This record gives sequence, structure tokens and C-alpha cells, in this order.
Amino acid sequence: MFDLTLIGIGTGNPDHLTFQGAGAIRDADLILIPRKGENKADLAGLREEIIAQVSDTPPQIAYFDIPKRRADDGYLRGVDEWHDAIALRWQEAIAAHRDAKRVALLIWGDPSLYDSSLRIASRLQPQPETRVIPGITALQALTAAHAIPINDLGAPYVVTTGRRIRDEGWPLNASKVAVMLDGECSFQSLEMADYEIWWGAYVGMKEEILIHGPLADMASLIVETRAKARADHGWIMDIYLLKRHVD
Amino acid sequence: MFDLTLIGIGTGNPDHLTFQGAGAIRDADLILIPRKGENKADLAGLREEIIAQVSDTPPQIAYFDIPKRRADDGYLRGVDEWHDAIALRWQEAIAAHRDAKRVALLIWGDPSLYDSSLRIASRLQPQPETRVIPGITALQALTAAHAIPINDLGAPYVVTTGRRIRDEGWPLNASKVAVMLDGECSFQSLEMADYEIWWGAYVGMKEEILIHGPLADMASLIVETRAKARADHGWIMDIYLLKRHVD
Ligand SMILES: C[S@@+](CC[C@H](N)C(=O)[O-])C[C@H]1O[C@@H](n2cnc3c(N)ncnc32)[C@H](O)[C@@H]1O
Ligand SMILES: C[S@@+](CC[C@H](N)C(=O)[O-])C[C@H]1O[C@@H](n2cnc3c(N)ncnc32)[C@H](O)[C@@H]1O
Repeated sequence: MFDLTLIGIGTGNPDHLTFQGAGAIRDADLILIPRKGENKADLAGLREEIIAQVSDTPPQIAYFDIPKRRADDGYLRGVDEWHDAIALRWQEAIAAHRDAKRVALLIWGDPSLYDSSLRIASRLQPQPETRVIPGITALQALTAAHAIPINDLGAPYVVTTGRRIRDEGWPLNASKVAVMLDGECSFQSLEMADYEIWWGAYVGMKEEILIHGPLADMASLIVETRAKARADHGWIMDIYLLKRHVD
Repeated sequence: MFDLTLIGIGTGNPDHLTFQGAGAIRDADLILIPRKGENKADLAGLREEIIAQVSDTPPQIAYFDIPKRRADDGYLRGVDEWHDAIALRWQEAIAAHRDAKRVALLIWGDPSLYDSSLRIASRLQPQPETRVIPGITALQALTAAHAIPINDLGAPYVVTTGRRIRDEGWPLNASKVAVMLDGECSFQSLEMADYEIWWGAYVGMKEEILIHGPLADMASLIVETRAKARADHGWIMDIYLLKRHVD
């Protein structure tokens, strides 16, 4: 039997790691690293760098391949099967290290935010005790880079995905909305004259790009900048905060 | 002239500090520490502990008193005047250390989230260059402690305040809502049978208390636990996540 720790590592800046995260890396016997990371980025390299940075005698590392996602079924059905498949890979990687009592994964950003690791962990048999170490999210990296608050004074905000903005429009009654997981610059589907945008790609990383201004003025610049950066680097991760100016 | 760094320090666990935050503390010439902290807690002590933990030759520290807030005016007017008054205290504390080029403040949680430091900093004359270092928020400490995701799969969530829940009810169309700044257990104003709650007080600290379950079953337990803990410690900070089960 082993226990499992999901360690938030922040969003690409190795110095986003917390002391708690560093301690959990040192305490692990075995760390699982996905071989083909999110968005084709070589994020395995960053994970190895973070481990080396905090431990003189690194724990064992087991690599696992992230299986392909079936896109032909309904969205949720496809995701469920995909999580089942990833859970099997974890299980195999752990089974190959029977002596490991403390298994850990290094999770991009924070394990609570648009991340499947907790759902995958709940599929493991027998069910390990699971601990979560919070990490800096892409949203915090974005607001820090722009040096802005996320909320207006005493006011709420919404966090959502590009797909929801495209399918459902602006969330009812919201004044500030943060958008993640948007491969299609979905802000273009809004009435652009009404919004201000704070956009960032590769936030917290050396490749960081930031753009801020009225959405109507910035939209095409963002679309072009994003396309070019994606072509140059072979991958991109971007995120943005919108403020609505009408009521 | 000086520049200003707002350093997120997490929510009471000194190990929430990031390596980036530690570096920024070491780089500072002068750190401003509020003498009467949030919620009467002696949070100055935690800040001193964090500074000592990361720097052998600590930077200079200047203490400032947080002025009393006028509650008699309208809400926003009162807040604006209060921020003006705090900005003056910062200005005085910094003026007493003319040699300081790099001034820093240690901000509870993350400087972007329900925190006034950026708004206060924008009142300083002349305007210093301001940098933000993200820190672990109370919301992340809560979801980590309960080992839960904040969002349902691919779904949005709302972050709001106790006041808004009381005044405006449940945000339209939301399925998950996180509530902060709630001195009055405002979940009691909701139709309690429809919700599940993950509540936490002193999250990330050694005093941490967690409660989870159907809201209707847990509401009075939370109200009692909160009142007792507040009486025992002389202060409390609590936060919760609600999920709505009807559609
Ligand atoms: C699967 S989610 C994971 C989020 C992560 N758990 C977090 O806490 O930030 C991936 C999305 O996060 C955002 N993201 C992650 N890292 C980013 C970065 N360095 N710069 C910009 N956006 C980023 C993008 O919106 C991307 O589509
Ligand atoms: C003025 S806001 C500051 C939030 C902070 N900037 C952050 O990032 O978490 C204070 C509110 O944060 C929440 N909070 C902060 N620390 C907390 C803790 N350790 N446990 C529970 N709630 C906390 C409470 O809801 C409290 O009313």
C-alpha cells in the first residue's frame, strides 16, 4: 500500500514552488512524470528541473505515457474513458515500484483548478490516501504579471473556459470573468466594445507575453500574437481576465 | 525613489511561501508590517517568523498601525477614505527610511484576491513601480485541505463574499460558489436543502478546522463550531465552497 501526494508546482516558473511542495518532493519515494505533457510542451523537463533543485538525492522517477484521448464520443464520455486509461498507467507505473510507500505527482499550477488528477486518483485500486499541496495557478500568475486585483472591490468574479464563453456567452450578471482552456480566442464571440482584457501567454515563464487594453482594440493583436507564438514555440498556454464596462 | 513589491505569503502556514517570495524578501531593504492585523489575529508574528526563516541578515522592518475604519458613511466611501489613510501610514513609514530602495509588504494569501494593497499602492506619491509575487490563497488552502477540485469537470465557478450572498442570493446559473469575507455564516440565507458545503476555518494553520456535508445537516454545526472557535482564539477566518444540487 502507498499514499499519494498531488503537489502543485505553479505554472512554469520553478520558483513558484512552495516550501511545502519542496518538502513533499523530498519526502516522496517515487514521483510519476507524464512523458508527453499538456499542449505538446516538454513539461517533463521542467518537472525534472524542479526535483533536482530541491533534493540532493532525488527520489525514484517513473515515467508514464499519457494515452490518446478519444474525441469521437460525447465530451464527458470521452473524458471518463480517458481518465480510466490514465489511472491504469499510474497503476502500472506504481506496480513496477512495489517498495514505494509515498508516491507523488507534480501538478501544473494547483491540483484543484481544471486538473483531472484528483478524479484519476479516485479510480486507483485499492484507494490510496490522497493529500494535496496547493500551488500557484495560471490565474494568479496572470494577475501578478499585470499587477492587478482579480476582483473589483468586494465584488464577485467567475472563472470559466473558452468553450463555455463560446457556447453560453458572458455569464449572467458577472462583471469580471477569467477564461482558461481556450484554444480559440473565444473572446471574439463577445460584443467586444463592452470589455477590457488582460491577456497572458506562457505566464510566469521566460517566454511570457502580456497584452492589456480595450478588447475591441486588442482582439486582433492577441489573435495574431497567439498564432505566431504558437507557431514559433510549437505549443502555447494562454489565459485572460475580462471586465465588462456596461451594466 | 523606491520600488514596491507585494509578496503573497499564503494563509498562515509559513511553508506556503514560494521560492520566489523568499527571494523577494531577501532582496528587500525595508519591509512594512501592519501592527494590528486582520481580524485581531496577531499576524505580525507570522510575518516576522517568515522573514527570519528565509534571511540570515533580515532586512529593516517598519511597523505601521492600521487606522480605524469609518463605518458610518456609505460602504464604498468608507473604504476609499480608509485606503487613503493606510496609504499615508505607508508613506510615513517609508519616509522614515530614506535609504530604502526596495520596499516590500507581506500580503496574506495572494495580493490579487480580496486584498487592498494594490489599490493602496496606487495612492502613493510619487507612484513607485509595483511588482506582485503570487501566493497561495485561502481558497486553494481550503480545496487542498478537503482534497477536492474547485470546479466540476469543464464547468465554471464563482468566487464571492458573504455580503453578496446575503444581499443578492445565489449567483444566477452557478453550480459551484466559493464564499470569503463572511462574518455571518451567510449560507443560512440559502435554501439549505439544495446545497453541499466544504467549510474551513484557520485553513493551513495548526488550528485548522474542516467540516463537509449536506448544508442542511451541517449548517448549525458550522455556526456553533465557528462561534466557539472564535471565542477560544479571539479571532477567526473562515471560507467555504458550496455546490448546488438542483438545476
Ligand atoms: C488544464 S488547465 C490547468 C490549470 C492549472 N491546474 C492551474 O492551476 O493553472 C490548463 C490551462 O491553464 C492555463 N495555463 C496554465 N499554465 C499557463 C501559463 N503558464 N500561462 C498561461 N496560461 C496557462 C491555460 O488557460 C491552459 O489552457
Ligand atoms: C481580506 S480577505 C484576504 C484573502 C487573501 N488575500 C487570500 O488570498 O486568501 C480575508 C478572507 O480570506 C479568507 N481567509 C484568509 N485566510 C484564511 C484562512 N487561513 N482560513 C480560512 N479563511 C481564510 C476568509 O474568508 C477571510 O474573510
